[in-house]
Amino acid sequence: MAKLVLIRHGQSEWNLSNQFTGWVDVNLSDKGVEEAKNAGKLLKEHGLEFDYAFTSVLTRAIKTLHYALEESDQLWIPETKTWRLNERHYGKLQGLNKKETAEQYGDEQVHIWRRSYDTLPPLLPDDSPYSAKKDRRYADLDPNLIPAGENLKVTLERVMPLWEDQIAPKLLDNKNVIIAAHGNSLRALSKYIERISDDDIMDLEMKTGEPVVYDFDDKLKVTNKTKLDN
Amino acid sequence: MAKLVLIRHGQSEWNLSNQFTGWVDVNLSDKGVEEAKNAGKLLKEHGLEFDYAFTSVLTRAIKTLHYALEESDQLWIPETKTWRLNERHYGKLQGLNKKETAEQYGDEQVHIWRRSYDTLPPLLPDDSPYSAKKDRRYADLDPNLIPAGENLKVTLERVMPLWEDQIAPKLLDNKNVIIAAHGNSLRALSKYIERISDDDIMDLEMKTGEPVVYDFDDKLKVTNKTKLDN
Repeated sequence: MAKLVLIRHGQSEWNLSNQFTGWVDVNLSDKGVEEAKNAGKLLKEHGLEFDYAFTSVLTRAIKTLHYALEESDQLWIPETKTWRLNERHYGKLQGLNKKETAEQYGDEQVHIWRRSYDTLPPLLPDDSPYSAKKDRRYADLDPNLIPAGENLKVTLERVMPLWEDQIAPKLLDNKNVIIAAHGNSLRALSKYIERISDDDIMDLEMKTGEPVVYDFDDKLKVTNKTKLDN
Repeated sequence: MAKLVLIRHGQSEWNLSNQFTGWVDVNLSDKGVEEAKNAGKLLKEHGLEFDYAFTSVLTRAIKTLHYALEESDQLWIPETKTWRLNERHYGKLQGLNKKETAEQYGDEQVHIWRRSYDTLPPLLPDDSPYSAKKDRRYADLDPNLIPAGENLKVTLERVMPLWEDQIAPKLLDNKNVIIAAHGNSLRALSKYIERISDDDIMDLEMKTGEPVVYDFDDKLKVTNKTKLDN
């Protein structure tokens, strides 16, 4: 049966400066580039070959995918970029330093925004420079789909149609799939794939640039999960 | 009306070592990477924004596209990779040094192979390490479509379905399209677009990394052609 590999993008410039990022299109840091290349080397070492690739429409995930595919000699596979794999939209917190936000709102409130499954962050006003509603890459989307802030529950809801319509059918057809995306869009996908509860999902951590390999049976139940590292 | 931009990939390692390349998957040289990034800067300076990107399944063209899109802040646009945009298949000449080939076969014969519109090169045997018939990226193609050697006429014939089915409809729908590909697959496309004769087409030269911008009327006749340079 087919394999699915998830890769969380390498360190970004705002991971480094400890800012909430969400849908802001921040680049990989130098370390992030190295992490992405290393992910590709691991894929090659383990002989993992893919038929299809998926990523978000955010540069840090796209570049992670490209580095990983290039290092494993398969930059030529078909690739789909979709907003459904974007990071969780962090609302008004986007761009704020995490430490300063904790000082301003209190540790407990920030912990809730970061770790609650279904609490929304403060919503981003449409006139913010970070609003996705002005961004050409979302111009063809129903404006009602463009978020101003998401929790993991909402993130999962918009990731699922991609799984249902595009990823699951390919796996059932014995095609290997690689997804390079973000901490929370991948956490959402893992929640569904591994049937993790609302309470437990926020404890699932994925390391940047560490490929997670799932094997499935013919009912798409996970038969094996492996993390690749050096 | 929509714009179409063609970019010939930056210098490859075999451009540098003066070898016939064709379908062999050779990487960009350092200079080629710089040329690709420079193409992206030119796109950005000229305010060129795209809705769709097309490239071949060969690394040097894919990377040229990625660098050009990243430099112009549009790495997120949908991208299609297709064998139909591959370089002309150079048959048994692939991998040979151009100067040594001329010494062996004579300048005139090599000139004919390189510049005749409809003379095929010596065909590549299926057991050559360069044969595309063993390559996973062509595994889903009708084996009869995988060439052992092409002239420009044959190259044009396999590029045309892509134009007809995917590129022309998008231009007619006012979508801007960028294509990063190869000297001969782009020459073939230009021959059709500009209605260049069989005799004249081999004189058309495209510089590596120099974007060529076409404007069209609503019958897809060219109204303007511009080459972007520094």
